[in-house]
Amino acid sequence: MTIPRKSLRRMHFRLPTLVGLLLSGAVYAQAADPTPADLKVMADTVWVLVTAFLVFWMNAGFGFVESGLCRSKNAVNILAKNFVVFALSAIAYWLVGFGIMFADGSSFMGMGGWLASGADNSPATGDAYKGIFGSLNWTGVPLLAKFFFQLVFAGTAATIVSGCVAERIHYKSFMVFTAFLVGLFYPITGHWIWGGGWLGTMGMLDFAGSTVVHTVGGAAGLAGIIVLGPRKGKYTAAGGMQPIPGHSMAMVFLGGLILWLGWFGFNPGSTMAVDPVAISHVAMTTNLACCFAILTSTIVAWIMMGKPDFTMTVNGALAGLVAITAGCDFVSVTGSAIIGAIGGIIVVPAVLFFDKMKIDDPVGALSVHLVNGVWGTIALGIFADPGAPGAKSGLLSGGGSGLLMNQVIGVLSVAAFTFVVSLVTWYLIKATLGLRVSPEDEARGLDISEMGMEAYAGDPMGR
Amino acid sequence: MTIPRKSLRRMHFRLPTLVGLLLSGAVYAQAADPTPADLKVMADTVWVLVTAFLVFWMNAGFGFVESGLCRSKNAVNILAKNFVVFALSAIAYWLVGFGIMFADGSSFMGMGGWLASGADNSPATGDAYKGIFGSLNWTGVPLLAKFFFQLVFAGTAATIVSGCVAERIHYKSFMVFTAFLVGLFYPITGHWIWGGGWLGTMGMLDFAGSTVVHTVGGAAGLAGIIVLGPRKGKYTAAGGMQPIPGHSMAMVFLGGLILWLGWFGFNPGSTMAVDPVAISHVAMTTNLACCFAILTSTIVAWIMMGKPDFTMTVNGALAGLVAITAGCDFVSVTGSAIIGAIGGIIVVPAVLFFDKMKIDDPVGALSVHLVNGVWGTIALGIFADPGAPGAKSGLLSGGGSGLLMNQVIGVLSVAAFTFVVSLVTWYLIKATLGLRVSPEDEARGLDISEMGMEAYAGDPMGR
Amino acid sequence: MTIPRKSLRRMHFRLPTLVGLLLSGAVYAQAADPTPADLKVMADTVWVLVTAFLVFWMNAGFGFVESGLCRSKNAVNILAKNFVVFALSAIAYWLVGFGIMFADGSSFMGMGGWLASGADNSPATGDAYKGIFGSLNWTGVPLLAKFFFQLVFAGTAATIVSGCVAERIHYKSFMVFTAFLVGLFYPITGHWIWGGGWLGTMGMLDFAGSTVVHTVGGAAGLAGIIVLGPRKGKYTAAGGMQPIPGHSMAMVFLGGLILWLGWFGFNPGSTMAVDPVAISHVAMTTNLACCFAILTSTIVAWIMMGKPDFTMTVNGALAGLVAITAGCDFVSVTGSAIIGAIGGIIVVPAVLFFDKMKIDDPVGALSVHLVNGVWGTIALGIFADPGAPGAKSGLLSGGGSGLLMNQVIGVLSVAAFTFVVSLVTWYLIKATLGLRVSPEDEARGLDISEMGMEAYAGDPMGR
Repeated sequence: MTIPRKSLRRMHFRLPTLVGLLLSGAVYAQAADPTPADLKVMADTVWVLVTAFLVFWMNAGFGFVESGLCRSKNAVNILAKNFVVFALSAIAYWLVGFGIMFADGSSFMGMGGWLASGADNSPATGDAYKGIFGSLNWTGVPLLAKFFFQLVFAGTAATIVSGCVAERIHYKSFMVFTAFLVGLFYPITGHWIWGGGWLGTMGMLDFAGSTVVHTVGGAAGLAGIIVLGPRKGKYTAAGGMQPIPGHSMAMVFLGGLILWLGWFGFNPGSTMAVDPVAISHVAMTTNLACCFAILTSTIVAWIMMGKPDFTMTVNGALAGLVAITAGCDFVSVTGSAIIGAIGGIIVVPAVLFFDKMKIDDPVGALSVHLVNGVWGTIALGIFADPGAPGAKSGLLSGGGSGLLMNQVIGVLSVAAFTFVVSLVTWYLIKATLGLRVSPEDEARGLDISEMGMEAYAGDPMGR
Repeated sequence: MTIPRKSLRRMHFRLPTLVGLLLSGAVYAQAADPTPADLKVMADTVWVLVTAFLVFWMNAGFGFVESGLCRSKNAVNILAKNFVVFALSAIAYWLVGFGIMFADGSSFMGMGGWLASGADNSPATGDAYKGIFGSLNWTGVPLLAKFFFQLVFAGTAATIVSGCVAERIHYKSFMVFTAFLVGLFYPITGHWIWGGGWLGTMGMLDFAGSTVVHTVGGAAGLAGIIVLGPRKGKYTAAGGMQPIPGHSMAMVFLGGLILWLGWFGFNPGSTMAVDPVAISHVAMTTNLACCFAILTSTIVAWIMMGKPDFTMTVNGALAGLVAITAGCDFVSVTGSAIIGAIGGIIVVPAVLFFDKMKIDDPVGALSVHLVNGVWGTIALGIFADPGAPGAKSGLLSGGGSGLLMNQVIGVLSVAAFTFVVSLVTWYLIKATLGLRVSPEDEARGLDISEMGMEAYAGDPMGR
Repeated sequence: MTIPRKSLRRMHFRLPTLVGLLLSGAVYAQAADPTPADLKVMADTVWVLVTAFLVFWMNAGFGFVESGLCRSKNAVNILAKNFVVFALSAIAYWLVGFGIMFADGSSFMGMGGWLASGADNSPATGDAYKGIFGSLNWTGVPLLAKFFFQLVFAGTAATIVSGCVAERIHYKSFMVFTAFLVGLFYPITGHWIWGGGWLGTMGMLDFAGSTVVHTVGGAAGLAGIIVLGPRKGKYTAAGGMQPIPGHSMAMVFLGGLILWLGWFGFNPGSTMAVDPVAISHVAMTTNLACCFAILTSTIVAWIMMGKPDFTMTVNGALAGLVAITAGCDFVSVTGSAIIGAIGGIIVVPAVLFFDKMKIDDPVGALSVHLVNGVWGTIALGIFADPGAPGAKSGLLSGGGSGLLMNQVIGVLSVAAFTFVVSLVTWYLIKATLGLRVSPEDEARGLDISEMGMEAYAGDPMGR
């Protein structure tokens, strides 16, 4: 704090042009005064790091929503998964994932950038950038800030899967899958869209990751559900469905609000630079889509289920957030309201549909992340508005169907690729490590069988 | 993220003067380099958005404090209310509320600015501002950033009411009231003080909303309590009072700390610009008032009730925070300590007083928000210090009683108006939709009767 | 909000040189435009305040981890302690602590700066700084921002002690100790390292406080455990150990993630200025050390205890964070991975060791904060890398053993001083106020005996 005074005062600016340096010496009396270019990098870095912290915080939200929607006999298992999965993700993404996603390479994947290092002359941007992470040359923050922001996104994709396979999967088997997902599959499709790959080149748009993050997480989770099968007792032989209520709506509430808060990092932070109009616009569209989705999902649930089901309210909020993620910078404020409202409407029948198909998704992750990831990606092709900061025209603003087609091709390609490679991986893990706990262990809960402890030990009053 | 490279690099600055533009081209070699005016808007926007996120996060705090202080049989209802109320608030405030509060109009209310749009040339400030939101011309952040920051404040007012009417109100009836409060009543009195209306013109001061937010929320809640009546069993025929303990002090603890954290957005963010000395001062006074209030409320509770009642500690913290909200920028650090200490002292007898009056406020919201909203507003008239960033003189620093009188008139006017229109609204809702659940439903809890689910399903161990 | 328009527009910049002022008038058309020096102070202040808010938020994390690892019959007591202790810390640190730590004085302690006031010409830095807080002259943020950031650190030290003495100490006795620790002991050793005292002068380094905060908290807690003795029933006469499981792993999970999030304020914020490369580097090393520690602690626990004990996963995360705190700016990314991995390995046997010694630490605070505070301080002497922002050479990069020796001397001196003065203070409190509750009160829980309430009133379902 005080000791490294000298090193702290020696600011680590590497100016892209000499002019800036000369100016800062010539015009300003204090040699230490930063140039406008320096100051912009300072503001951008603060923004990227603070929003990355908010996205990191979503780990707590996913853990609480998922655990609250499951039974307490599996709570420790779920919470521990959400802790360890981020650790594994960070290491896998550091070792190889970031390089595959953002380093220069082919249109299929990046090659290089291992350990988040390599040639890089940030804060130079645009044509002045000389390094191996050319696909991130539009932001001038330091390389490790770029890495850290992308890492917290990668962690999110893995966490989505956790909800799909909850209450029946082996702890270590899930961890192995996570390493493949975050180290390999997620970066590959991410490269296609954000890393200079074929979908981005084709013209597909995905501002903050309806496809890159949410569709990927959902598709990988769907594959896992298919390989694992439903929880014991969820579907009866007679074709009926037995609801398995979660053990704590308090956790679902808090988790939902944590995720909502985290999305203010997820979407506005995806500018990776402080563009005042753009980040204000994105905060606005993100919030309004969520609010409309809350209303529509609550009303639809009230109509279809007879009660304003609280889990549908929360899943509606998340559905709206996922749906606006692709287009938050490209659609108008009114457009965001419509996208969110539709997201909230479709999440309720989606939950009922998956149950009808006997696809047992304990927390509704498929309806939130997969269905609305697809919807949000396509919606951008419909509602993209030239007046929004992103300045693109979609179907409804005279842009024709070109963008819409790119969006459809993009999200289908990514979903199909992720589903197939995930399915293979789940089967390989099943054949080697084993995937599903024994029926006895499932019955008494994974906390005792896998973790060796209870979530709420002693009698509730602790006497 | 990477796709919209070009649009991101095209920064959306609209400079108020040509000079700045010419300069940025002439002096700096890089065309993209922002001017100092741009950089100020960048820093201001980051500050406004980040503090707005913190205020948004207070929704989680209100939900947890309120639910934790109530019984678990009503927990889902309360948590769901806190989720949906913000969604409704956002939509009502977007449609009309923001315009009524901040658009140009009469000294009674603004007229225009519907859907947070209209003529606006932000980031121009002061006399250079040409638009319909002249009352916000002192900050240069984009219009949607102004809206978003004000929205999260509006949401807070509605949430305060939720606590007052908990455990006995119909879900949908509360929602209808919320729409009126946030869409109409709150913006009107807000216009009086912050939107160019008669109280601000008269000279009343309220830096971050002891009156605008907290007194309004408390007055609306008091009206609700009167129309609803107390919970069954709270007051006995013999004039006795039966305590109804809350179901989770863990939730109260976390909720209290979330609110405390959120207040670091609420008060310092109300600068809506990065004035380093002012925001540091406000963070300091906000925190110190809270800390002194914690000590005094705990000690007073220990003396009056025989134990260091934890709910009084938390309500003391909130009381201190509410009390310093009006004056955080106008009083000295020592002044904040005194204001907070007094806030913590009065909250304890206030809780006991309302119970004596058979005004059943399950969470102590009146004592926190109404009583201390009034106290904080008046305290500013007493302790305003010309040495503080706000640079005003109150009664104790030779400023005479003028400011104090303005404060008294202001807070009384706002409280009276809000109380009367709220009372009428509550009665109208009661006469049409109905307000209170049946005694049977109240007895078995609103979670089953209104929401169709339990907060903590299964036995606690989930076996 | 709107009322103080004029005062808000009058930005409180006090420029260190006239040149800047003249320039801003001469070159830029708008008189209000800030200079680059102003803009730097703006960015720095936003960064310092936002990261301070994150560190403040750690109070919630400590409260939840500690309470979750203890029994529910003591939950209110623990939660209340964590609320009140920060209030007391803030007041003690305001009155005297900050002055003792950072004001000019001797190499043993500062003398002056009471009530966080005194001569100070911030934002002047370096040689231009003329004031009594010379040890903080390397950052240009306003004095109250410096105070607030340091305060939240001081509060952390006190909170660590809370975990060590949980489930058996008198509420008020703990409060008295806290006042001494935060008002006197912590500032003295903090002065030695960060305030211009003898250890800093000697060359000891501690970037964000492995020694200053964590070792101090651990040493004070160890003294408390020794004076208090173990909880009833923890150790059997036959030399056996009876595990006392915590009552809520959900709280432990959330608390752990809150602390992890808070550490992104703790370490990167300790720059107290926006150095883009340094803060990105520190965020990276902080996170990677934590992730490696999660993996190693989980694996070591799995091997030593037969199960992937979740409490060890969380304590492993915290161990990694404590260990990297001293060196986060001085070591390479790879170095941080190694430091974290070792931190995660040693925390598990450390927990088992203290139990073997019958040192009853209910939450593992000694293994996390004391053991890894020492390890992290020493590790910096081994792994300091001239290529890291801190630009120092340790043992492994050819820097010789000089730095390593300074680190060893520093951490041992601070630990020894803190342990001795704490031991004396604990004994004095024991002899006067009394320290430990009666065996009957311990058996029925401190919530009833000390606080007069239950954490979870009513039956869990609230019916």
